[in-house]
Amino acid sequence: MKVLSGIQPTGLPHWGNYFGAIQQYIALQGNEQAFYFIADLHALTTIRDSATLAQNSADAALDLLALGLEPEKATLFRQSDVPEVTELTWLLLTITQMHLLEKCVSYKDKKERGIAADAGLFTYPVLMASDILIYDSEVVPVGADQIQHLEVTRDIAKRFNSLFGETFVLPAPHVLDSSAKVPGTDGEKMSKSYNNTIPIFETPKRLKKLINRIRTDSTPVEDPKDPDRCAVFDLYRLFASPEEQTQLADRYREGGMGYGDAKGLLYESAMEYFAAAFERRDDLKKRPDDVKDILKSGAATARARAREVVDRAKHACGLSCFL
Amino acid sequence: MKVLSGIQPTGLPHWGNYFGAIQQYIALQGNEQAFYFIADLHALTTIRDSATLAQNSADAALDLLALGLEPEKATLFRQSDVPEVTELTWLLLTITQMHLLEKCVSYKDKKERGIAADAGLFTYPVLMASDILIYDSEVVPVGADQIQHLEVTRDIAKRFNSLFGETFVLPAPHVLDSSAKVPGTDGEKMSKSYNNTIPIFETPKRLKKLINRIRTDSTPVEDPKDPDRCAVFDLYRLFASPEEQTQLADRYREGGMGYGDAKGLLYESAMEYFAAAFERRDDLKKRPDDVKDILKSGAATARARAREVVDRAKHACGLSCFL
Repeated sequence: MKVLSGIQPTGLPHWGNYFGAIQQYIALQGNEQAFYFIADLHALTTIRDSATLAQNSADAALDLLALGLEPEKATLFRQSDVPEVTELTWLLLTITQMHLLEKCVSYKDKKERGIAADAGLFTYPVLMASDILIYDSEVVPVGADQIQHLEVTRDIAKRFNSLFGETFVLPAPHVLDSSAKVPGTDGEKMSKSYNNTIPIFETPKRLKKLINRIRTDSTPVEDPKDPDRCAVFDLYRLFASPEEQTQLADRYREGGMGYGDAKGLLYESAMEYFAAAFERRDDLKKRPDDVKDILKSGAATARARAREVVDRAKHACGLSCFL
Repeated sequence: MKVLSGIQPTGLPHWGNYFGAIQQYIALQGNEQAFYFIADLHALTTIRDSATLAQNSADAALDLLALGLEPEKATLFRQSDVPEVTELTWLLLTITQMHLLEKCVSYKDKKERGIAADAGLFTYPVLMASDILIYDSEVVPVGADQIQHLEVTRDIAKRFNSLFGETFVLPAPHVLDSSAKVPGTDGEKMSKSYNNTIPIFETPKRLKKLINRIRTDSTPVEDPKDPDRCAVFDLYRLFASPEEQTQLADRYREGGMGYGDAKGLLYESAMEYFAAAFERRDDLKKRPDDVKDILKSGAATARARAREVVDRAKHACGLSCFL
């Protein structure tokens, strides 16, 4: 099964990203043909600072490898290292109907809010279609908010196939499980747009500070507390074993425990949970050439498959050698 | 001086194309760094039949070489053989403001006539910008109707330069001389959209037929005629020497000559004018591998220059190697 995941190099992945997405798509790497790419060409539509983009891309590679992506099992590469993807993007653009793009949410939103949009934002569903179709991807893990884009990809593929003959594989979505409750420091869903995130790779000091900032109610120390209505407990659940969860829930209900204690436990369990990842990340940081080699070899694998599909598409529409 | 010309492979170039454009941009090949490309990626926005596109591209190469483009003097290649151009297209798309594209004539026209447009038609000024900027082109021969696109190219280049630092050379237009009067068979300007063209590489039989079809007035044979108000004479002017022109003009004014005689002279002078081109084309058709080699070697030259510019642009916006 050919699985493909694109990861936006937005910098500093947080607990919400991890439990809502990263952990789940890394879990698919057992597949014989899982491809993971750092979507730096997409990031260009929003990041206009070259140092930030370069740093975020580098961090994304370190983050993924630290969090368990194994180059022996899966192919990891940078999108921009596979120029074939833009080659196919042009072919797809020529047969993509404007109305398909006009209805896409990220452009529509911006337009409706009166913000001047660039053509990259408008056309990026086509780049995304190219990302997917170029590897004959069969399954694409997506969040619920990305299902529309996969539909656009399927529409584009179908139109190309009907105009020029069967060329592309139609991919299916693998909708990520979003049931895990990951509140941010203000109790709302953890999200960069709410400015309430707890990044995975924080220094212990900053991490402690962020956890202490998690909003709790004003129940006095001695009173019983409800674990099911507490962001600290929700987060603890993500890291602790069932037994540990029961133990802390009992302490909540008994009273006599302050939220500070619960926060201390949360800090420790999170540190333990990500300890191996921290270690791997520190180690990888000291071996930039090895990371480079991983990405290079990933790009070579990806390019070989991409070349095949682009040539197939070029042949279908009359761009192959003609004399 | 770096000169760049893109030629749409629309099939069967006619006399109007030749005197209005082809002849003029081929005349620039003496420049040390003249690049000519067959714009097959652009053609994809309108041609949906693979055999037609392949045939038109092949014909365009033969036509240009037959009409005097010399591979020793200039670089000839197919656009789709330089995938770098689509790579740069994406970078440019991310910083191209929507309103720049919305005002471009070919899209606007189609939209206003209620025709569903594809994203390729909408974004093709960006592909055109990439075509131009990717070779650090300094001068681009354009028809008056293409000046807008060159303006868009300059706008895109300026925006990129201002966002990411000096990266692109700003190209200047070399506006083609459109003063030559080239009427079609109906006396109107020769143009495919009027269905009144005389293709350059026609069989003698078809050519004779087309010339005989040129509309003339009903002045009787014996009466004097006005050479300055006759499409046949306008066309003869393109091929004949000043002496020949004076001779025929005299015969017009004297009377006693039918338009059929003038048409016969036009046929002969055109055949003579293009005789060498016909011969070269027949010869090239027998050596497809040589034509292939010319295009291949042209693409290699073009790619080398393109790679440099794309790498410069990638570096500027943060996509170069980062670890």
